[in-house]
Amino acid sequence: MRINGQDFQTIWLDADGRRVHVIDQTRLPHRFETSTLATMDDAAKAIRDMIVRGAPLIGVTGAYGLALAAAADPADAAIAAACETLLATRPTAVNLRWALDRVQALLLSAAPAERAALAYAEAGRIADEDVACCAAIGDHGAALIRAAAERRRGEPVNILTHCNAGWLATVDWGTALAPIYKAARAGAPLHVWVDETRPRNQGASLTAFELLSEGVPHTVIADNAGGHLMQHGLVDLVIVGTDRTTRSGDVCNKIGTYLKALAAHDNGVPFYVALPSSTIDWRIADGVAEIPIEERGPREVTHISGRTAEGAVAEVQVTPEGSPARNWAFDVTPGRYVTGLITERGVCAATESGLSELFPDLAG
Amino acid sequence: MRINGQDFQTIWLDADGRRVHVIDQTRLPHRFETSTLATMDDAAKAIRDMIVRGAPLIGVTGAYGLALAAAADPADAAIAAACETLLATRPTAVNLRWALDRVQALLLSAAPAERAALAYAEAGRIADEDVACCAAIGDHGAALIRAAAERRRGEPVNILTHCNAGWLATVDWGTALAPIYKAARAGAPLHVWVDETRPRNQGASLTAFELLSEGVPHTVIADNAGGHLMQHGLVDLVIVGTDRTTRSGDVCNKIGTYLKALAAHDNGVPFYVALPSSTIDWRIADGVAEIPIEERGPREVTHISGRTAEGAVAEVQVTPEGSPARNWAFDVTPGRYVTGLITERGVCAATESGLSELFPDLAG
Repeated sequence: MRINGQDFQTIWLDADGRRVHVIDQTRLPHRFETSTLATMDDAAKAIRDMIVRGAPLIGVTGAYGLALAAAADPADAAIAAACETLLATRPTAVNLRWALDRVQALLLSAAPAERAALAYAEAGRIADEDVACCAAIGDHGAALIRAAAERRRGEPVNILTHCNAGWLATVDWGTALAPIYKAARAGAPLHVWVDETRPRNQGASLTAFELLSEGVPHTVIADNAGGHLMQHGLVDLVIVGTDRTTRSGDVCNKIGTYLKALAAHDNGVPFYVALPSSTIDWRIADGVAEIPIEERGPREVTHISGRTAEGAVAEVQVTPEGSPARNWAFDVTPGRYVTGLITERGVCAATESGLSELFPDLAG
Repeated sequence: MRINGQDFQTIWLDADGRRVHVIDQTRLPHRFETSTLATMDDAAKAIRDMIVRGAPLIGVTGAYGLALAAAADPADAAIAAACETLLATRPTAVNLRWALDRVQALLLSAAPAERAALAYAEAGRIADEDVACCAAIGDHGAALIRAAAERRRGEPVNILTHCNAGWLATVDWGTALAPIYKAARAGAPLHVWVDETRPRNQGASLTAFELLSEGVPHTVIADNAGGHLMQHGLVDLVIVGTDRTTRSGDVCNKIGTYLKALAAHDNGVPFYVALPSSTIDWRIADGVAEIPIEERGPREVTHISGRTAEGAVAEVQVTPEGSPARNWAFDVTPGRYVTGLITERGVCAATESGLSELFPDLAG
């Protein structure tokens, strides 16, 4: 997608065929910088420190991390150790495990000397598949937006989103934002309410940055505001992403998503979740009981980073010295509050039968 | 209540019997400073700029503002103009109108020469009544906490609150926090989840500051976290305040309150609202349709104020330059999601019959 009129993806291979480049998302929206991953540890650090974030991009970065590991040492033990290190970086996103399992299985079936090349090829394939997958999610979701636009008779369709499930969370297009980009590029009138998404402000920073760069009309709001907007008819539909989806259609997404789903349900606003099928964890059904929720450091709550009047990026503390804080990164929205799942194969109900009809080959 | 071991109220009369002193709440939690109101315009500015905030304290400040106006010019026209100026500072809180109406009616029934003294006496009476009222709310609400403590068999009762309805929002004790202070001082084991309350962070700053000063165990969380906590049994009850309550029990409180009420309802967590009867607007029933919601400037969303590493209070911008923001200050929680209203006369259902049985003299 576009940044200052130039097309970018979030991750790409260097001309040397070994090093990997990523957009440093911790600097956005105030600075556009890239970061180079030269070793598996660089890749693990990039995921852990959220230089890259978003379930699909984490998966691709993990795959490239394993390629970097195989290039350094293709022995079984080294590859197993790399998988363990990479998997430990973020416990909630299922794509990471999915991508690592896929690359690791391929490598263990090949001779050590062939492994590095195989791993790079497979990581590249995962990245390309992600782009195609997100584009398909965009096409299916854009149809929902066009239908809403017809009901609005030319008035802009108001779409609320939470966190960043845009192209910065994937390789390109995004998941929740892909339908918005597809619809906007096709000329549908729309406007996006952007939840700022405390504590890390991925909405106010990354989603707003993406929409601004693409020229999509949008307004940043506090996470607290969505219910009020829905009570007053100012939201036509909600589209969010998911980091892990159970086979029964429960979705685990950025903390606060569940609250918006409740408000949408209470006000009859359609609540859609966009996802590549790689985020579906077919092993589990009850998201609230079974998905481990990552708890991050309290400093993300007590301190906020932003741009000072002088243009520097600085951090300020909002709490009094001595007040503790806690910081869970995700919550689970039960499938009963989800109007539909927008996948690369189309839209389905957020139920076991809905998902298994669309993915009979995966549902097992 | 206590600050550094010293007892304070939020507003008090100078020894000169004319000027009024308030705690400057825009500087908390990082600096404790007071501000002097020497004219009606100072009082209006203090309300408008949120040097004082919270429905009851706004009412008392408005009453003292009218006293300052009467001391400067006791003519009918000057008093009417002062009422208009003061009323325009914050459109949502009903206490302000209530306090101004009460003082104005008294003044217009007296000779101009007597008005200043009458106004000061009446403002002082409103302040004293507020202290007594909040103490009574505290006693009634503390009984609910003690009952929860018995069910918890000695484990701390986890109470979630949103925004600041503490003693800083009133003259003393607070509304939503009064039951917590009363229960804590009586030895009940409890712990408070403090919603940070974006965009102005009154939870992370004021509520955390109050609880820290009183030595009440607490943890600051992002506004997004409450639903997750409730899904996992980590909240025993919710207590919030209200800026305006309809005769049918709808409550208008800080934006985001409605989302917590929905989550409490979905998880069977009792959701209480604490209020002095002066916040009840008996003229209206449907809060969503009838209560005007104040929209404040976008800068409260795009910029966040806090303490720098060097100890200065500074503002950082979290959004990209060019992304617009909007900022509604309140939302309405329908009475059907409210377990009970904690008033100075006891706890009642959030319904027209519940309120009119407790307040037959006011329900009319």
